[in-house]
Amino acid sequence: MEAIKAKNRISVLGDGGWGTTLAIHLHNKGYDVTLWGVFDDYVASLKKKRVNTRFLPGIEIPRGLNITSDLREAGEGKDLIVLAIPSQYMRGVLRKAKPHIDRRNSVLVSVTKGIENKTLMRMSQVISDELGTVKLGVLSGPTIAHELAKGMPTTAVAACGNPDICRYLQGIFISDRFRIYANDDVVGVELGGSLKNVIAIGCGISDGLGFGSNAKAALLSRGLVEISRLGVALGAKTRTFSGISGLGDLVTTCISAYSRNRYIGEQIGRGKKLKQVVKHMQMIAEGVPTARSAYELGRRHKVEMPIVREVYSVLYKNKNALKAVEDLMTRKMKVE
Amino acid sequence: MEAIKAKNRISVLGDGGWGTTLAIHLHNKGYDVTLWGVFDDYVASLKKKRVNTRFLPGIEIPRGLNITSDLREAGEGKDLIVLAIPSQYMRGVLRKAKPHIDRRNSVLVSVTKGIENKTLMRMSQVISDELGTVKLGVLSGPTIAHELAKGMPTTAVAACGNPDICRYLQGIFISDRFRIYANDDVVGVELGGSLKNVIAIGCGISDGLGFGSNAKAALLSRGLVEISRLGVALGAKTRTFSGISGLGDLVTTCISAYSRNRYIGEQIGRGKKLKQVVKHMQMIAEGVPTARSAYELGRRHKVEMPIVREVYSVLYKNKNALKAVEDLMTRKMKVE
Repeated sequence: MEAIKAKNRISVLGDGGWGTTLAIHLHNKGYDVTLWGVFDDYVASLKKKRVNTRFLPGIEIPRGLNITSDLREAGEGKDLIVLAIPSQYMRGVLRKAKPHIDRRNSVLVSVTKGIENKTLMRMSQVISDELGTVKLGVLSGPTIAHELAKGMPTTAVAACGNPDICRYLQGIFISDRFRIYANDDVVGVELGGSLKNVIAIGCGISDGLGFGSNAKAALLSRGLVEISRLGVALGAKTRTFSGISGLGDLVTTCISAYSRNRYIGEQIGRGKKLKQVVKHMQMIAEGVPTARSAYELGRRHKVEMPIVREVYSVLYKNKNALKAVEDLMTRKMKVE
Repeated sequence: MEAIKAKNRISVLGDGGWGTTLAIHLHNKGYDVTLWGVFDDYVASLKKKRVNTRFLPGIEIPRGLNITSDLREAGEGKDLIVLAIPSQYMRGVLRKAKPHIDRRNSVLVSVTKGIENKTLMRMSQVISDELGTVKLGVLSGPTIAHELAKGMPTTAVAACGNPDICRYLQGIFISDRFRIYANDDVVGVELGGSLKNVIAIGCGISDGLGFGSNAKAALLSRGLVEISRLGVALGAKTRTFSGISGLGDLVTTCISAYSRNRYIGEQIGRGKKLKQVVKHMQMIAEGVPTARSAYELGRRHKVEMPIVREVYSVLYKNKNALKAVEDLMTRKMKVE
């Protein structure tokens, strides 16, 4: 791995809140950055307004930051390609991008949290499945986009089996307000970031029912136990789930007023139906498809996941939210 | 250990918010409950008003619940004695209560979170130190008092080396809204409950500085790493810190608007001095003395505790709060 060049050429695929935030962050660090979005008309509006009104309102996109909907422009000649595509669209975008990506020389980093429904694959698995062998890492953590965009202190984990790529990614993203830890457990980091959204929906349901911090803390800590259990069955290390990308991300998502997943749960706890809630949302809430994937993974690997099961039942089987929480609380007394 | 009798005689020593809540909870379960407070005049007011206006406003104390400031009445002939005395006063109360406690037959359970400043002892150590060999357990967890008092779902851990005592305590406290897990790691459960208050002060400081969920989640997860590290050096099990009484309690304390420790941090983050903040508080914030104990324990056992050190420096060494957070964020890049 070479040292970080003075002028890295970087592209960010995906113009959601997090993709846009990272593009601005990297531009401000002095790199040559291109932000790619799939919709021509929305990209045109981004270029004109220099604000991502839909996904990152109130944050200016600097003039020098290149914006495009052309995958060739976003793919060719890049040192680093940041993949910030919603999980269920990742594969489709990669297929179109593949001819333009220099798989020998570009480093790729996934910042997407989710599990593909059809294949139950993590994002790095989807990427390898489509692109073959590439220099690939993952960046994940408690990263509410607009907080980093406003310069509030934020941390994340750069995960990769190759320590050189980890160090490269640390160096690329780090700043005095964005602290990056390294971790070689890619499976654990990706699962933590994906599965926490399901627990966040559960915490939202509890909020919507009018319950307090005690209930939320219980859901959160028992939820982390479930996530770790499934993670270990899938080859992750237990301790990763206690770190920034596991526990940390889970906490942020469960407490932030900005978390879409927690919000969906809250609305359902108040008596709304999933379809009603999702219809009025502009953004994709990854926890909704991930609840299905997590439930299937748990069944397939015979891992006991009571909270995931109840969230799944509320979302997809029309189970009453209060009944679901009561069923969780009145399970047999047990050892922790 | 005998089975739970239909009419257990239970006393709760300590008429703070949590002691009062537990006394009401146990009374409502049908036990014969006595609540003891140290101040004659406040006890008289409790008996008259049947509301703990200072520590648990808005919650009625049922008529049948006996209230006293007489230690003989609270100590003699009890099946279970619940110790809910602030940590720095625990030893003094025990000395006075000792002649009235049937150490062969009564079970004792500590629900106090803290570490004695002078000796750096946990509460169960202080109790054994004063009373000798007793049947002793610990109850700890994410238990904001007024939430349980209002019937919101709550969980806690009953910890004891003796599984019979664990089961006894589970049976005594459990209800359909209060779920009790068992754990044999007394050291881990007590340290988790005590040290989290220091991290909560840190989270409050971050809130007071105007930072967001990302920063709080980072403090919380790196804080848990520190707590676990110290805990393991003191003989606790790592996994206890990922459970209800570790992570769970930490989360509640860091997010609840009702947490006194988080509140103190928030005021300091906004520029106030510790003395000013504490002067206006009716309740004791355990995290303030515990910050000193935790700092000393870390030094003594050579455990790296950067967050505890910064909180200690802000509280006791007049360090600037923003500088403390910046010093945490700009430490050398590292592996998680």
